[in-house]
Amino acid sequence: MIEAAEARLKGHARRTPMLSSPFLDEVAGRRVFVKAECLQHTGSFKFRGAWNAVAALNPSGVLAYSSGNHAQGVALAARMRGIPAVIVMPADAPAIKIANTRALGAEVVEYDRATADRDALGARIAAERGLTLIKPYDMAEVIAGQGTTGLEIAEQAAEAGITKAEVTVPCGGGGLTSGIALALEARAPGLVVRPAEPEGFDDVARSLATGTLQRNARLSGSICDAIITPQAGDLTWPVIRRLCGPGHAITEDEALRAMALAHDRLKLVLEPGGAVALAAALFRPGADTVIAVASGGNVDRAMMVRALAA
Amino acid sequence: MIEAAEARLKGHARRTPMLSSPFLDEVAGRRVFVKAECLQHTGSFKFRGAWNAVAALNPSGVLAYSSGNHAQGVALAARMRGIPAVIVMPADAPAIKIANTRALGAEVVEYDRATADRDALGARIAAERGLTLIKPYDMAEVIAGQGTTGLEIAEQAAEAGITKAEVTVPCGGGGLTSGIALALEARAPGLVVRPAEPEGFDDVARSLATGTLQRNARLSGSICDAIITPQAGDLTWPVIRRLCGPGHAITEDEALRAMALAHDRLKLVLEPGGAVALAAALFRPGADTVIAVASGGNVDRAMMVRALAA
Repeated sequence: MIEAAEARLKGHARRTPMLSSPFLDEVAGRRVFVKAECLQHTGSFKFRGAWNAVAALNPSGVLAYSSGNHAQGVALAARMRGIPAVIVMPADAPAIKIANTRALGAEVVEYDRATADRDALGARIAAERGLTLIKPYDMAEVIAGQGTTGLEIAEQAAEAGITKAEVTVPCGGGGLTSGIALALEARAPGLVVRPAEPEGFDDVARSLATGTLQRNARLSGSICDAIITPQAGDLTWPVIRRLCGPGHAITEDEALRAMALAHDRLKLVLEPGGAVALAAALFRPGADTVIAVASGGNVDRAMMVRALAA
Repeated sequence: MIEAAEARLKGHARRTPMLSSPFLDEVAGRRVFVKAECLQHTGSFKFRGAWNAVAALNPSGVLAYSSGNHAQGVALAARMRGIPAVIVMPADAPAIKIANTRALGAEVVEYDRATADRDALGARIAAERGLTLIKPYDMAEVIAGQGTTGLEIAEQAAEAGITKAEVTVPCGGGGLTSGIALALEARAPGLVVRPAEPEGFDDVARSLATGTLQRNARLSGSICDAIITPQAGDLTWPVIRRLCGPGHAITEDEALRAMALAHDRLKLVLEPGGAVALAAALFRPGADTVIAVASGGNVDRAMMVRALAA
């Protein structure tokens, strides 16, 4: 399915570069490579899964629940396919995210987090209009789309002469993590995925440590909002358990420092949740070579100023 | 010479991506593409010319005068070739630039701008140690190296179906501008280069308007310090005169706004001088399609904060 996704994404998604800097190697005390997925369409890897799902399922219209990167990925994929997209978003989502999603051609339906039943609302709209739900991670077509990142990493690592490395990946519901792990299992078995999560929201690290699926106690209160989910998915967790090395729990200060170093040394804009894997590569011990996935760059200006002032 | 440079750079320089965003198209009222040369090694296109010069001339050691991007490009190229590099820098250059150049393995020789004769100092060191001077722009091997950016633009434009466009290029001494113009003349004659300069330092725009080589009245006082030179070179000016369309003179406010939009919409870090061509693409009328070269991203954190707060 990942290979089929690769064929569908060709000419539509970007093949993002793998970058490095001798200055980052010095900070980390090892070789660091960065897969710059913040340069993907809509500023995050989410476009890959969204595009693959709409291209594979060929729906007449799509619906998604999201206040963030998945919303923009689905909106742009639908627009490029010429089909309608409805995004169900909380009314208190940041105005800029609602505006960006609308600007990509989607219809945004707002709901009140306190009183409305989001799932019932979405199901009713989908049934009335014949829309197909595109889930953010627990959906095979979405995982396969994210996995194309792993095929590119395998190729780019081979070009750089890397046969053995850790691959750190920002992990929320696990779509990107499991997709990359599956791709590398087949194409570059010497590259081992390690999930990176925010401290206090490290359900996957705890799940890997205990061998059983753990949940997060809280779902808000992190600057890494893009990768906060209740728990890994029914499809993603078994893959992660089977293929991934131990998880990293990253502090907010480490994420902000990784953002500042990506600014200085790679000329990349990362959001906090998109910087946790780079933070793990820079600040935590591990293999001699590490490839960090920089999964997204949708950060508001105030947060970037905070990172640069730290 | 540009084709020979392309062969030399293969596997050493990065093929930088050409990016776009529907949000930038909306700001500009036309299609905008951005050649992200800030993602090149050392954060600017300068590595291309430096690498080509050391690979073509095969010197036993190199010397350059620079307080900025050329210094870092020459330092890294020399280190990758395993030869010594001496960079002659004013003692009052920013400490971070001196430190970065040293960290790339170069020997930095400082001089006092007020009292020392820089050229005499450099000539003496070069003669004593058998070093070859790598000029920042008025040198055929350097122009050919920068011209490889144009070969990539021609290919990437063809892939995107673009046969007719303006190509805006940040212009100091004209190495990048003339190199790209020569490459496009041969490979994509429907793409016409227009130089972009800071307002008040628009010697090339005035030279093009009058048909005779003009000089800048001042050489300091611009945030676009990376592209301030006395005048275009003896080699670069005849090429620019023959091939380029009218120049753009960009205000500091426009450069800062282009930096903020590159941050928000492309996830790229640009320095002010590296953002003037994008500013021209966004804020000045012209052809229906424009390809802006984002030539460098070596900006300090305070300047980026200033751009984001504007």
